[in-house]
Amino acid sequence: MAEAADGGTHLSGSVLIIGTGLLGTSIGLGLRARGLDVVLSDLSPSTEAVARDIGAGRLLRSVEAAFAPSLVVVAAPPDVTASLAAAALKDWPDAVVVDIASVKSAVLTDLRSSGADLSRYVGTHPMAGREKSGPVAARAELFNGMPWVICAPEEATPNAVRRAEAMAYDLGAVVSRMSAEDHDASVALTSHLPQVMASLVASRLQETPSQSLALSGNGLRDVTRIAASDPNLWVQILSGNAGRLVPILHGVREDLNRLIRTLEDPVADGARLDMAQLIAEGNVGQARIPGKHGGPAQSFVSFTVLVDDTPGQIARLLTEIGEIGVNLEDLRLEHSSGRQVGRAEISVLPGRVNDLVSELSARGWKVVQ
Amino acid sequence: MAEAADGGTHLSGSVLIIGTGLLGTSIGLGLRARGLDVVLSDLSPSTEAVARDIGAGRLLRSVEAAFAPSLVVVAAPPDVTASLAAAALKDWPDAVVVDIASVKSAVLTDLRSSGADLSRYVGTHPMAGREKSGPVAARAELFNGMPWVICAPEEATPNAVRRAEAMAYDLGAVVSRMSAEDHDASVALTSHLPQVMASLVASRLQETPSQSLALSGNGLRDVTRIAASDPNLWVQILSGNAGRLVPILHGVREDLNRLIRTLEDPVADGARLDMAQLIAEGNVGQARIPGKHGGPAQSFVSFTVLVDDTPGQIARLLTEIGEIGVNLEDLRLEHSSGRQVGRAEISVLPGRVNDLVSELSARGWKVVQ
Repeated sequence: MAEAADGGTHLSGSVLIIGTGLLGTSIGLGLRARGLDVVLSDLSPSTEAVARDIGAGRLLRSVEAAFAPSLVVVAAPPDVTASLAAAALKDWPDAVVVDIASVKSAVLTDLRSSGADLSRYVGTHPMAGREKSGPVAARAELFNGMPWVICAPEEATPNAVRRAEAMAYDLGAVVSRMSAEDHDASVALTSHLPQVMASLVASRLQETPSQSLALSGNGLRDVTRIAASDPNLWVQILSGNAGRLVPILHGVREDLNRLIRTLEDPVADGARLDMAQLIAEGNVGQARIPGKHGGPAQSFVSFTVLVDDTPGQIARLLTEIGEIGVNLEDLRLEHSSGRQVGRAEISVLPGRVNDLVSELSARGWKVVQ
Repeated sequence: MAEAADGGTHLSGSVLIIGTGLLGTSIGLGLRARGLDVVLSDLSPSTEAVARDIGAGRLLRSVEAAFAPSLVVVAAPPDVTASLAAAALKDWPDAVVVDIASVKSAVLTDLRSSGADLSRYVGTHPMAGREKSGPVAARAELFNGMPWVICAPEEATPNAVRRAEAMAYDLGAVVSRMSAEDHDASVALTSHLPQVMASLVASRLQETPSQSLALSGNGLRDVTRIAASDPNLWVQILSGNAGRLVPILHGVREDLNRLIRTLEDPVADGARLDMAQLIAEGNVGQARIPGKHGGPAQSFVSFTVLVDDTPGQIARLLTEIGEIGVNLEDLRLEHSSGRQVGRAEISVLPGRVNDLVSELSARGWKVVQ
């Protein structure tokens, strides 16, 4: 591996990718873009052919006899990850083997039971792109700026860990380290619980008459956005992290039971206090979520500007915000049906919001709230 | 009332606003901007003074003896809305009285019990701005392009209904009609259920160690966004719509129980099928939510463009999208901590996405997924 100017290390040698779905193919494209030799393998000959055709690498079944990867990436579904990793550790005795499954302890436990040599194994989890699937949607830059968690088992050598980190670094990711247990506890709360709750809400809408959905607003859209997820993949993730998710869901169920009891008799003593407590506790919890920049929670405040619903006017708004010299944290657009006006929700640092609102108003923009 | 060019009617005469919080004061500002005479009244002398000071109207305690509003808007919390509306119907025998509470049947039921003359009463619900509160945050354009539901009881005269609709129309809202029962059933599902579920998730985070929150992503942020809500207001809303919300929560609880059972024994027969079914049902329900334009559900597809994290480059991206001639449905920004790259998620009509992606790529933009 080579040292990068900013202290990260770069990958060298050949990389074998087992599993050429969205993530595996994107890894191939990204590493090929860095000039590395990438070899691809997938259970499905047509899937690996597509990945090769779009430039993610060359096929394992066509490699020279002397082929010896320095890194093997198991990019298959969680259910089959451990067995593929164990096989790879055996088949490629000079390679570091990494996986990219969303759950880490289950894979590690299975690997330990298999008796494989874990000094060359490093569990990882790239937190990027799940809405689409398959090699055709793959992109070299999928991981740019996205978190990639390295969960090295105790058995792994420092060299193996460095090689895993170099891969993530070379793909443009923001690399962090965590134990498999801490990782699984964290994603149970920050990823798997929200997924479950989004699906619980969305499934209520299956047979709702359309007129009842007419008043749908951004609250419903936000809560159910991640309900558009792949059932097959999520069954594997939820099963794989069941041990950590179940206690969390027990707690949610208790809170839900308490809320239902108070709603069944909303005039009973203490009922209102109970309800208020749930909402207030939600305030506290929500405020603890880190800001998008990875900075402190709720670092930003937002206001809304009314715009003609054209990209031209929205672009002009952003240009003026840039001229005023304030950095944009977030921009969300909302359109109205029928009144020809759009709303741009702007989020900026609290210390700049008053200046920005005054300046935009002075320039003729209609600022709301 | 006067006819507008597009067939809506305009309000005339004086308007009395009872309750000068965010919504009442915004209504005052909006109607003053249309040249109407607005009179304000609030339980709190300082609150109504602030509303007057920012230009929302003149104070009731200073009006001439002959003052006679054509419209009274009760803009107070749900708990006190019915009694204020009943009093207003008595005090102002020539006025139409409207309210703006988030729950409609409870108010109507209480009004009927009070024996008030409901021929001049129209329940309404403007679906706008709740994050901030109080008169200082009020804006004349708060309702521009936002939905305003008119829930006229059977007793209301056509004239009364027209006057209520004229108010909403003059405030720039998109007016629709619905019975109080249908309204409450609809918001129970599309507003109150998501609020409850967001709070249930967010309250789990109260005592989570910070490192566990480090992997928080947009899934968690989306699901918990509306958890930052006012407990006092929401207790009134949930209590007021308890009858419709409880059956929905019973259904959610059943689904949650079933999920917990399968996660407690994920290898049992049928466990995986059960889990997959929940996610798949969530897919179906989520797809039924209307698109932001009020058009068919899921009318748009999205892709991500990598950008330098500056308003200048984002503005240039939007300008070029405008030049290419494609309308923007949504734009969401995401920043990365540490790698100096931002991601702009663009949503457009499915029929235009391929052209747009090719054109942007040809112009040098890095399109991901």
